[in-house]
Amino acid sequence: MESKVVKCSDYEWDSVSHKEYKDDQSCYKGVQRYSLLGTRNDEQALNFETRYFEVETGGYTSFEYHRHPHSVVVIRGMGTVILDNEVCELSLHDVVYIAPNTLHQFHADHGESLGFICTVDRYRDRPTLPDKDKIDDIVESEKVRKKIKI
Amino acid sequence: MESKVVKCSDYEWDSVSHKEYKDDQSCYKGVQRYSLLGTRNDEQALNFETRYFEVETGGYTSFEYHRHPHSVVVIRGMGTVILDNEVCELSLHDVVYIAPNTLHQFHADHGESLGFICTVDRYRDRPTLPDKDKIDDIVESEKVRKKIKI
Repeated sequence: MESKVVKCSDYEWDSVSHKEYKDDQSCYKGVQRYSLLGTRNDEQALNFETRYFEVETGGYTSFEYHRHPHSVVVIRGMGTVILDNEVCELSLHDVVYIAPNTLHQFHADHGESLGFICTVDRYRDRPTLPDKDKIDDIVESEKVRKKIKI
Repeated sequence: MESKVVKCSDYEWDSVSHKEYKDDQSCYKGVQRYSLLGTRNDEQALNFETRYFEVETGGYTSFEYHRHPHSVVVIRGMGTVILDNEVCELSLHDVVYIAPNTLHQFHADHGESLGFICTVDRYRDRPTLPDKDKIDDIVESEKVRKKIKI
């Protein structure tokens, strides 16, 4: 029986260590990643991974795109997310669907940490950071252009 | 661009209606189901579904098993979950992995509603309600036997 409860206290889960969000630390700021389910040997039946990301005040995830979609549920604080040409406000329990190849970036820009559950396919493509041409091609919104951190 | 933010206020999401948990209402009590992501035409890229279940005080989900696994994150209240021979306490942000074929049942038995995000494969088998022989075969714990609602 591999079923289990992983207890949580104040956004820290038993036996789940947080890690730097990415190896390349130049493209984001103040982000921790927690692999909650789907990466351990006894969870191989899951076809997806359940992760928690926490962006500290003033931080942001990398501005990126990929073919695999994201399902996101905010469980801490407030912030904003860029979705191609939109800047959307986020608050507690808001849900975000990030469709394939959407340029996206989360910002903890409301004076508090932004934390969210992000579910993805177990087998997925790696994110790509857009080059200047790609950004010029997709991002027409001046509001988004000013918001992007790269 | 099908990406979007679905705003939430007090556990109600814009344009997401809650439904009765199951057609057969004899096997559970006081449970609402919200399909947050993965069931609409513009979310076909998702290989999984993100749902929210809310169990009202004194309610419980059906005691069942199935081959597909569950990933669960509690986002409201407290309660307990039966996992085969264990009764586990649940509180805010606890994570539950329900492995294939585990007998399971959620109870809102702490004087408040229990709400949780539950992610499952888009294509999955239907749940089975165990018969008496199956329960006798699996459930040795007297504590669990007393807790089960069928």
